[in-house]
Amino acid sequence: MNPHSPNRSALDRRAFLKTSAVLLGTAGLGGLSQGCKTRPAGAGGGAWRGGMSPNDVVLFQGDSITDAGRSRDKAGEANHQAALGSGYAWLAAAALLLDRPNDGLKVYNRGISGNKVYQLAERWQQDCLDLKPNLVSILIGVNDLWHRLNGKYDGTVDVYEKDYRALIERTRRGLPGVKLVVCEPFVLRCGAVNEKWFPAFDGYRAAARRVADEFGAVFVPFQGMFDEAVKLAPPQHWAGDGVHPTAFGAALMARQWLKSAG
Amino acid sequence: MNPHSPNRSALDRRAFLKTSAVLLGTAGLGGLSQGCKTRPAGAGGGAWRGGMSPNDVVLFQGDSITDAGRSRDKAGEANHQAALGSGYAWLAAAALLLDRPNDGLKVYNRGISGNKVYQLAERWQQDCLDLKPNLVSILIGVNDLWHRLNGKYDGTVDVYEKDYRALIERTRRGLPGVKLVVCEPFVLRCGAVNEKWFPAFDGYRAAARRVADEFGAVFVPFQGMFDEAVKLAPPQHWAGDGVHPTAFGAALMARQWLKSAG
Repeated sequence: MNPHSPNRSALDRRAFLKTSAVLLGTAGLGGLSQGCKTRPAGAGGGAWRGGMSPNDVVLFQGDSITDAGRSRDKAGEANHQAALGSGYAWLAAAALLLDRPNDGLKVYNRGISGNKVYQLAERWQQDCLDLKPNLVSILIGVNDLWHRLNGKYDGTVDVYEKDYRALIERTRRGLPGVKLVVCEPFVLRCGAVNEKWFPAFDGYRAAARRVADEFGAVFVPFQGMFDEAVKLAPPQHWAGDGVHPTAFGAALMARQWLKSAG
Repeated sequence: MNPHSPNRSALDRRAFLKTSAVLLGTAGLGGLSQGCKTRPAGAGGGAWRGGMSPNDVVLFQGDSITDAGRSRDKAGEANHQAALGSGYAWLAAAALLLDRPNDGLKVYNRGISGNKVYQLAERWQQDCLDLKPNLVSILIGVNDLWHRLNGKYDGTVDVYEKDYRALIERTRRGLPGVKLVVCEPFVLRCGAVNEKWFPAFDGYRAAARRVADEFGAVFVPFQGMFDEAVKLAPPQHWAGDGVHPTAFGAALMARQWLKSAG
């Protein structure tokens, strides 16, 4: 056990989910998924496929890629650059706010460096549900593998997927009609990202996609985008250490996020 | 006379244009403008209002804002990050190439730091016409005033406008059917940009807009965009010295360029 290991409640929850999964079986989970797919996601009753509405309250959640040096002091101020950091969340927010200056959009960021999916769950009440967003965008997963590879964490891809599914269920339950965005975890093959990451990392990406599909969330294909971007410029240009985007990488991400969800 | 002053040929050309303007009178110039407005600009015969076509050859031209540290060694390679620099031109190119990977687009950059409009003219044959682009995007004007304010140059806003008009006419003549983009010069009120710049700078912006309108060019309203952006974050966030955009400023510019012309 080390400071980055899951705490007891998270482990208990995982054990519960594992038991539930065994009890329900694949068919049972499939049935749950189908139910979620047909659940109305947008205010209009149909599944939300992206797009903003006046007075939307947008919350970006995730790890360091979302955090991007945001100010904790200013975190309570909507649309504040320092509060939104210097990454894709801020650039996406700036574009949204420039395009729709009179729509009363409010954008917040609660990404925290180093977070894995269970750590989002631990702070989900105060850092998501209490803010009453009607659009929640999540980018999580790279640390779930990275910290496992470097021995700081023992969660598997199955733990990631079950935790992620539970988090999204809880979000749908706590915020009826919420618009959900699940962003694809991504890495660039440079810096800290070596061959040890593969094919394991592909499993995390696939899990995020399954969760998005099951719950009718908009999926933002960041890995696919960066796979194309490295044909234009070396991976280091987009993310120096393979994980944390440069300003160029963040600009592409903001653009992709807006194309998918904005 | 100093190293940044117009050379003889540029002065001669200006004298010629001034004479022509006097001879033509306002009505004459107006007639010329009207003629240009109705001249077919796109391959389809109608005025081009933005948008790319397969196999377009795109040339970004301008000063340091376009230059953005581009490699001279690689300048001949289309779509090469180093050749395109680290500014809005590169970010716009990257987005275009990601969106249309199979369209055979070729993007070049020939911006040079410190350039004023007459300096574009001096190198227009080799750095524009010889490249045979079918889309030419120009951002020029901030140095035309800046170098005047700091005593390095004596050109006025009238010189700027006449030189700019002549440059665009020459481009239309040398590249029939070319798609033209005239970008609005802009400044942020911080760093090197103080009250001395105003209202003079507004005159350069207005001149660029007139030239765009007269020749049926797409106009990219960068100043308007930054005027809105400073409501979201301080001017320094977008351009540290008020003239040269940060990565955040460049990202906004690329987005605006694509909205207007892409």
